Amino acid sequence: MIYLDHNATTPPAPAVVAAMLPVLSSLWANSSSQHGPGQEARRALGAARSAVARVLGCKPVEVVFTSGATEANHMAVRGLLAAAAPERRRVVFSRIEHAGHLRLARALAESGVQVDFIPVLADGTLDLPAAAALIGPDVALVSLMAANNETGALMPVAEAAALAQAAGARLHVDATQFIGKQPFVFSTCGADAVSLSAHKFNGPKGVGALLLRQGTPFTAQTLGSQERGRRGGTENLAGIVGLAAALELLGDVSVEAARLAALRDALENGLIHALPATHIWCRSVPRLPGTSYLRFGQLSVDVVLQRLERLGVAASSGAACSSGGSEPSHVLTAMGVPADEALAAVRLSLGRTTTAEDVASLLALLPPLLEPLLQEEMLIAP
Amino acid sequence: MIYLDHNATTPPAPAVVAAMLPVLSSLWANSSSQHGPGQEARRALGAARSAVARVLGCKPVEVVFTSGATEANHMAVRGLLAAAAPERRRVVFSRIEHAGHLRLARALAESGVQVDFIPVLADGTLDLPAAAALIGPDVALVSLMAANNETGALMPVAEAAALAQAAGARLHVDATQFIGKQPFVFSTCGADAVSLSAHKFNGPKGVGALLLRQGTPFTAQTLGSQERGRRGGTENLAGIVGLAAALELLGDVSVEAARLAALRDALENGLIHALPATHIWCRSVPRLPGTSYLRFGQLSVDVVLQRLERLGVAASSGAACSSGGSEPSHVLTAMGVPADEALAAVRLSLGRTTTAEDVASLLALLPPLLEPLLQEEMLIAP
Repeated sequence: MIYLDHNATTPPAPAVVAAMLPVLSSLWANSSSQHGPGQEARRALGAARSAVARVLGCKPVEVVFTSGATEANHMAVRGLLAAAAPERRRVVFSRIEHAGHLRLARALAESGVQVDFIPVLADGTLDLPAAAALIGPDVALVSLMAANNETGALMPVAEAAALAQAAGARLHVDATQFIGKQPFVFSTCGADAVSLSAHKFNGPKGVGALLLRQGTPFTAQTLGSQERGRRGGTENLAGIVGLAAALELLGDVSVEAARLAALRDALENGLIHALPATHIWCRSVPRLPGTSYLRFGQLSVDVVLQRLERLGVAASSGAACSSGGSEPSHVLTAMGVPADEALAAVRLSLGRTTTAEDVASLLALLPPLLEPLLQEEMLIAP
Repeated sequence: MIYLDHNATTPPAPAVVAAMLPVLSSLWANSSSQHGPGQEARRALGAARSAVARVLGCKPVEVVFTSGATEANHMAVRGLLAAAAPERRRVVFSRIEHAGHLRLARALAESGVQVDFIPVLADGTLDLPAAAALIGPDVALVSLMAANNETGALMPVAEAAALAQAAGARLHVDATQFIGKQPFVFSTCGADAVSLSAHKFNGPKGVGALLLRQGTPFTAQTLGSQERGRRGGTENLAGIVGLAAALELLGDVSVEAARLAALRDALENGLIHALPATHIWCRSVPRLPGTSYLRFGQLSVDVVLQRLERLGVAASSGAACSSGGSEPSHVLTAMGVPADEALAAVRLSLGRTTTAEDVASLLALLPPLLEPLLQEEMLIAP
């Protein structure tokens, strides 16, 4: 199989699984217990927290382990909003946040919170003047993803942080797609809270974190004594150790980013050369190195994915969580892409296990399968 | 080590770890993805869901996987409350719910929800007449644990279900300590929602479930497309497979319950015989088979736990999550136990790995260590 769906999830690195196994088998005591085995588990938890802090450039106390990015995103938005001054009841999201996060935005709106959405431009980048107009002194927080999961377009976190800071608002950044793919330092990123999920960077599923700047007013959402009262529930130590191991394996992220960008560019150039009807979104803007969001003329994504499947290539129509739906991507819609073009969108996302051979193989095999379909499409086009 | 803290957590069974490993290594695709690997993951998710449903006597559609019982408890209370008719804004908890759950009760009260607490009697059982008086037509839901984590006392779930049903209220049961230790069938238990956590029955940490009766009005709290829109976030398939494997390993729960009750009774009888100052709470009421909550005269729990640690015995002062604190147990306080007695409380909780040799060893070694301390206590007693 050629796996080109790394934005949906990634394979746990063998070293990650190897780090988790002894925790599952031997270090299983409750890290809140006072006895010897409990203290041993607590030490391992502390070591994992320190490792996470070291790799992500934050203080250990700023790491709040969660069950993943979705929980971290909910926690951040609800927890920062609940702790905001009463006159700040407005929350600002971008229009291209993850579908699950936009559901939260709608739920907040239904519960009486004023929710505004920052639009994006046709090229997939954030409309910064619109953001500046929306982020005022009545805003409790701004929630912005660091990189879009479909297009890969990078969002202007530093600029958003400056706007939020000037307005006295908090900034939450969903860095689920960013961490592991681009250099990241929490202490200088400007955000008050940052979400991440281990399974997006070759860690296990079911574990993530919210990085929460020390001193930031925050109201816990899942109550309990763990994580300094910020997130209750017995710690998933095996998962947390796996998360830390995955981060430590990243090494110099920019080296891998350059490798992936070169592979991705080779893939895109090859596809455009072989199939001139190929259109690639966000190609001219800063984006994640391994993400390619494209369409082949207006060939239905189902048809293209079926051909890819036949070649043993795993790809997707966009976010895994909304795949299988027949609605055009809300991200492309926000960019003003017509529905018939958006319904042709295919996401190819490369990752650590992607090789030059994968790209060469795809370039050799896919165009001959799609070319006749594109010829046919041109003949029947109105 | 003699591990007598099974109510805090249990060792994952080797077969559970063995079931999780291939998922971590090979079945890592996102179960929401449409491609082959995603579908394979989705099939495994469905098989795990069916296994959970089979063991727990519910429909597969009634299983909502979560990160553990704490999340399930929060989800149940907030989700059932949000979906209740607007005239039902009162929530009833027992006074002896888990400390994290009582934090949620307080947070609800602070947010303007009327919260009432059902007291317990001096023997640790629920005050049913008080419950009947509290559960009226303005109640949205009752949240009651199936068995107390400290004393092991069983709560009258069937009676509470009848009261809730008569009042038109929903019943949420936190069965974290109950499932795996006593026979349980969701379809006939009377509760609308039941929480459980895998690590309490030799499964992995970081995974649990809320069983939610089909047709029960419920407002999702963590938003996303997964779990039929009831709980967002990429599924932790390895954990879920581990949870299912742990449930399937349980076999006939009543056989193990009888074994544990016999061991626990031998332990208690032996301790009382050797140290007549031993007092055991909830001994005369129905309780979990492996739980013994006791004090040796008024010997401080720290002193007793230190001696146990010296013998290589892991035990606790009560809930792991509140251990290390100097407050008397809220459960014993609710039973009317004076603070100086409550501060002497030691919890010994037996489980699947506990052997007759463990009990014999403890009975041979502990009394000689405690007897001189008890003699001294009697001399200095006022």
